Amino acid sequence: MKIDHLITSPTLLLDEKICRANIATMAKKAKEYGVQLRPHLKTPQSQEIASWLKAHDIHSITTSSLQMANYFMADGWKDITVAFPVNIREMDLINKLASQIQLNLVVENEKAVLALKKHLKYPVGIWLKVNLGNNRTGFNPDQTDEMQELINVIKTVPQLKAIGILGHAGQSYYARGNAAINQVHDNTLQICHQLKTLFPSLKISIGDTPTTSVATNFSGVDEIRPGNFFFYDLMQYQIGSCTIESIAVAMACPVVAKYPDRKEIVVHGGAVHFSKDHLLFDNGTSYYGLVCQRRDKDDSWQLLPAKAYLRGLSQEHGIIAAKHDFIQSTEIGSLLYILPIHSCLTANLMKEYLTLEGSTISMMPTQY
Amino acid sequence: MKIDHLITSPTLLLDEKICRANIATMAKKAKEYGVQLRPHLKTPQSQEIASWLKAHDIHSITTSSLQMANYFMADGWKDITVAFPVNIREMDLINKLASQIQLNLVVENEKAVLALKKHLKYPVGIWLKVNLGNNRTGFNPDQTDEMQELINVIKTVPQLKAIGILGHAGQSYYARGNAAINQVHDNTLQICHQLKTLFPSLKISIGDTPTTSVATNFSGVDEIRPGNFFFYDLMQYQIGSCTIESIAVAMACPVVAKYPDRKEIVVHGGAVHFSKDHLLFDNGTSYYGLVCQRRDKDDSWQLLPAKAYLRGLSQEHGIIAAKHDFIQSTEIGSLLYILPIHSCLTANLMKEYLTLEGSTISMMPTQY
Repeated sequence: MKIDHLITSPTLLLDEKICRANIATMAKKAKEYGVQLRPHLKTPQSQEIASWLKAHDIHSITTSSLQMANYFMADGWKDITVAFPVNIREMDLINKLASQIQLNLVVENEKAVLALKKHLKYPVGIWLKVNLGNNRTGFNPDQTDEMQELINVIKTVPQLKAIGILGHAGQSYYARGNAAINQVHDNTLQICHQLKTLFPSLKISIGDTPTTSVATNFSGVDEIRPGNFFFYDLMQYQIGSCTIESIAVAMACPVVAKYPDRKEIVVHGGAVHFSKDHLLFDNGTSYYGLVCQRRDKDDSWQLLPAKAYLRGLSQEHGIIAAKHDFIQSTEIGSLLYILPIHSCLTANLMKEYLTLEGSTISMMPTQY
Repeated sequence: MKIDHLITSPTLLLDEKICRANIATMAKKAKEYGVQLRPHLKTPQSQEIASWLKAHDIHSITTSSLQMANYFMADGWKDITVAFPVNIREMDLINKLASQIQLNLVVENEKAVLALKKHLKYPVGIWLKVNLGNNRTGFNPDQTDEMQELINVIKTVPQLKAIGILGHAGQSYYARGNAAINQVHDNTLQICHQLKTLFPSLKISIGDTPTTSVATNFSGVDEIRPGNFFFYDLMQYQIGSCTIESIAVAMACPVVAKYPDRKEIVVHGGAVHFSKDHLLFDNGTSYYGLVCQRRDKDDSWQLLPAKAYLRGLSQEHGIIAAKHDFIQSTEIGSLLYILPIHSCLTANLMKEYLTLEGSTISMMPTQY
């Protein structure tokens, strides 16, 4: 590739064109179905990439932490939902953010609401967390009495305004194929419908990339908060949320050793670059990434005709299993391009992108 | 703990006393067995922690990348081995380092040596990589003709001086218990002995924390390069390299939700804090960390009497499985202390330590 000469060590490549197309597709879909798109910035974690949303009239975003909200606030974002249950030890940062922007928080227990009542100095919007089936956080959908009780407590707090009910059907990550994804989504819509009937004044916000990418019915939903769709990755490809051609990021890794007898290549690119998320081939073998290529005619990442995969990672080493011919034709010192399993975690580790045009795009630093 | 009031979000705690004791133990052992200890700084990645080595007259270190060598060079370290095969795309950084310090590099193929011959402007020490059985990089021990050929090429390069043969018996990570660890080590010693006989002028350097922690025979070994021993972790505990009392790091994570019916607690602390390395309980259940406690009388991390474990991680959430009583007694807003599976990867993500005395210790930034 024309930027290869810029790359000396493991580098996260971003195809800006594909990323912008992914944003455009999701924005168009949201408009088409009459839902607000409030993208989750936990995936790109970048002010510059967030700025690409503005072309689609998107001015409201989601983050996974207050620190991340702070980072985007510093770039002028004025309406941010932190889609993580309120951590009552962070009241100072909550007050800092709430004093400057429309901050929206997620609660699911009375203790958090009472802590906000005691310490909050500025108005904040509140989303009630509902457990849509991934059993992470939130009220179970049938705990409507408990939800009403918490709403009643929220009403006693002048700084708080209940906006809606928010969930994340993360179990969609275990789905494979459109039918399975839609089954998760149909269940979500059923829950949303029941909640909307009981709490007509509250909005409904849902989130995951698989269902928001695939579903064609958003009846009763007011807002969607996907994040991974900025880049997609091999996990989304395996789920069925995206094509290989819509994956926007790939790691470029220098080849440092070749072992034709073992049918392996070793690259600089390890667990501190990719993260340790893996997927399984049909035969049960785990893999941490797939080698891809860029041909002039395709203008997107393409899998190799004969599969080559990252079969193991240590801290800095990546071990690629490949066919004899590929190993023979791969030179020590050349670059391999590898699609990551989970682009959110890979980006979080790399903290910087190199676009295919050779520009560097920065991300939120670890301490912010 | 007395520092709890300083902690608002996921924080990597470092027990400096335990870390210093781990260093002292390994330094004493190295002296006792007459081997040079060249600690691998890939685990702490911190100039301040590296400075603790000097009390033991240690002035030579190992890093896993040239960038990390650059970071330690900036703090005055003058003898650094980069224990990763030469990446020939990084000649500029190699020259920068070699112009200022005693830089030692690892090679295992002619192409790297010829690239050094062509581009290197300053003297560099060279270690030949041998594959001690973990099948990552290096010559197989029986490829002695090939090793001699590469040594002959090295001799034609005035800037290069062959120092020795270097290996890492990473298969020790699959051992459980002293007998299994020693079996790996005995095999290593046998290989070292053969190589020493064939190449008497070359030094022998070996590396992994399990064998260097447990073994009591280093016959024929000139240098050891463990890294994880600075902190140890649950993986080392399961292997049998350390006790719980010698683990120096723990994550402090704020409790954000409780689910007594599910017997679960949710903390702020996810894959972007812990990494995704996991271990398996005897029943096959995977876990990403164990909840520990600090009692005044122990002065070290202790496992809970009734096990509580990190059973799942998403980007920012950690889901703790625990007994009913523990969940009842755990308050929302309190902190849980969690021992990590793999301290190297956890530290790499956190990029900062908080000591139990309340001091912040910085690490190498992602881009250096």
